Amino acid sequence: MFKTIITPRIGDTDAMRHITNTSLPVWFETARNDLFEIFTPSHELTYKQWKLILVHMDFNFIKQTYFGYDVEIRTYVSKIGKTSFTVTHEAWQNGQLRTNGTATMIYFDFIKQQSNVIPKDIRNQLKNHYISPEELDEKNKNEMKKNKRVKEIDYVESDL
Amino acid sequence: MFKTIITPRIGDTDAMRHITNTSLPVWFETARNDLFEIFTPSHELTYKQWKLILVHMDFNFIKQTYFGYDVEIRTYVSKIGKTSFTVTHEAWQNGQLRTNGTATMIYFDFIKQQSNVIPKDIRNQLKNHYISPEELDEKNKNEMKKNKRVKEIDYVESDL
Amino acid sequence: MFKTIITPRIGDTDAMRHITNTSLPVWFETARNDLFEIFTPSHELTYKQWKLILVHMDFNFIKQTYFGYDVEIRTYVSKIGKTSFTVTHEAWQNGQLRTNGTATMIYFDFIKQQSNVIPKDIRNQLKNHYISPEELDEKNKNEMKKNKRVKEIDYVESDL
Amino acid sequence: MFKTIITPRIGDTDAMRHITNTSLPVWFETARNDLFEIFTPSHELTYKQWKLILVHMDFNFIKQTYFGYDVEIRTYVSKIGKTSFTVTHEAWQNGQLRTNGTATMIYFDFIKQQSNVIPKDIRNQLKNHYISPEELDEKNKNEMKKNKRVKEIDYVESDL
Repeated sequence: MFKTIITPRIGDTDAMRHITNTSLPVWFETARNDLFEIFTPSHELTYKQWKLILVHMDFNFIKQTYFGYDVEIRTYVSKIGKTSFTVTHEAWQNGQLRTNGTATMIYFDFIKQQSNVIPKDIRNQLKNHYISPEELDEKNKNEMKKNKRVKEIDYVESDL
Repeated sequence: MFKTIITPRIGDTDAMRHITNTSLPVWFETARNDLFEIFTPSHELTYKQWKLILVHMDFNFIKQTYFGYDVEIRTYVSKIGKTSFTVTHEAWQNGQLRTNGTATMIYFDFIKQQSNVIPKDIRNQLKNHYISPEELDEKNKNEMKKNKRVKEIDYVESDL
Repeated sequence: MFKTIITPRIGDTDAMRHITNTSLPVWFETARNDLFEIFTPSHELTYKQWKLILVHMDFNFIKQTYFGYDVEIRTYVSKIGKTSFTVTHEAWQNGQLRTNGTATMIYFDFIKQQSNVIPKDIRNQLKNHYISPEELDEKNKNEMKKNKRVKEIDYVESDL
Repeated sequence: MFKTIITPRIGDTDAMRHITNTSLPVWFETARNDLFEIFTPSHELTYKQWKLILVHMDFNFIKQTYFGYDVEIRTYVSKIGKTSFTVTHEAWQNGQLRTNGTATMIYFDFIKQQSNVIPKDIRNQLKNHYISPEELDEKNKNEMKKNKRVKEIDYVESDL
């Protein structure tokens, strides 16, 4: 599992005074930096060195996220295929899971514009971050049970 | 169906010289403005007047999208539930479907923080924009068959 | 003068229920597409073909901008130097100037990483879009005098 | 002085394979969170509690910034007026100043829509973060002299 801390900014909010939905893809992408390092340790953003292309992403907005509290993005590898793999991202704030989703990337040759088989050593590194959907569900339920609900700023009442 | 034209900007590209994935959620949100008008014709962004909250969005990146050519976003209503509905978005560029995806919204009372049944008159307006998955597939296949592939700037070759 | 129409989206607002400041750089960049076409008509985003690098930008937030009304971005060339030039951007909404600012770009060789003298034919095209600060001021004052203030949604009152 | 660390993401780059200009306003805004806390310690984003509105921002792009290395944003208070104040932001990467700029905010009542005099206790807190332009220049020159130029990934050569 990879952890990334995001501090929401004013521009991440919208007129409903919660974090706007288009910020989540940006936050989850930030969280994939650790994964990108496995594939391109030099960080060289060229057709020769970059190896990943995104083919799918999805987002479930479970609870609203707010300004004023840090957000922890947790990233797990949830599926490893022959030429592609999928990660599961979670955004936690004040001990509650707010948004989750997945991102599927293809191991890609940008010069030939075609997919390739993920090399064994990279596959092994991905395995270190793997979790099954059942394990993750169980883990999250236990964690949220323990977490007392933090009293967040109630924007609705305070603003009427 | 709602049509929205997006002109990609330099900041929508990334180092792979194609449109970066985080621009698509922004473009699709722009395309939902026509829908928002059905629910809040006054455009008043307050807890009293705003009625929609996003609970899910997903994106399939089918072909890469590039700078230099306008993108047409087509938005269809693809599912109408009791308290929620789903739209399908498509991003077309040079006669080819590049990215599609869905967005599910709940008819929501921001003051009570709870979902409500979508009123009949709004439901009727949504129906006017409904298309079934089968119809949409058929329509798109026919259209892409007719479209000759435009010779796009081949960033790969020109840059090696 | 170049004109670009921007339709604000929900994600352009922030919790103060006006357009957030970080959207303006994005909108002004969109408006520079017409200029980019003068320098790279092929739209080819490569080190060989792209010719401009931004060295300065500034923004004056004169009046707040809101969701629900289109914004017209007007772009003028306001200074032409030997290797650089400056444009003035204005964001108008409902007949009122909301934000203005400038952007200075250098005619740049990305391979040699050095500035170059702007070629004569490009300089001539830039001249066609030139306006002096005095002319622009005069023009804007006259225009705003004629414009009756549109009654915008008063987010403040409606939300208290 | 306030310090904020930003890890650039792929979407912060553009086709020129450097950080795109519209990311800097976002990064500098993130860095103002520490300042916002002085004015609204509750982080409550309502018309009643929020006290600042931005009236000006500018950016000087001195050197290009790249993906793959953290960026340190340094924020100083550079001017304190009666109803407004200005901060200077700097983006440092690999020991070099890449972008600097200022942001001017007004102490603002969102309900009455008018500026107010900055209270004495807040003014005192701002003073703790004040630096004069001369001091800052001197400090930066000394620091950059000491810093050996880190060998950054030379995207240009590696990509031709």
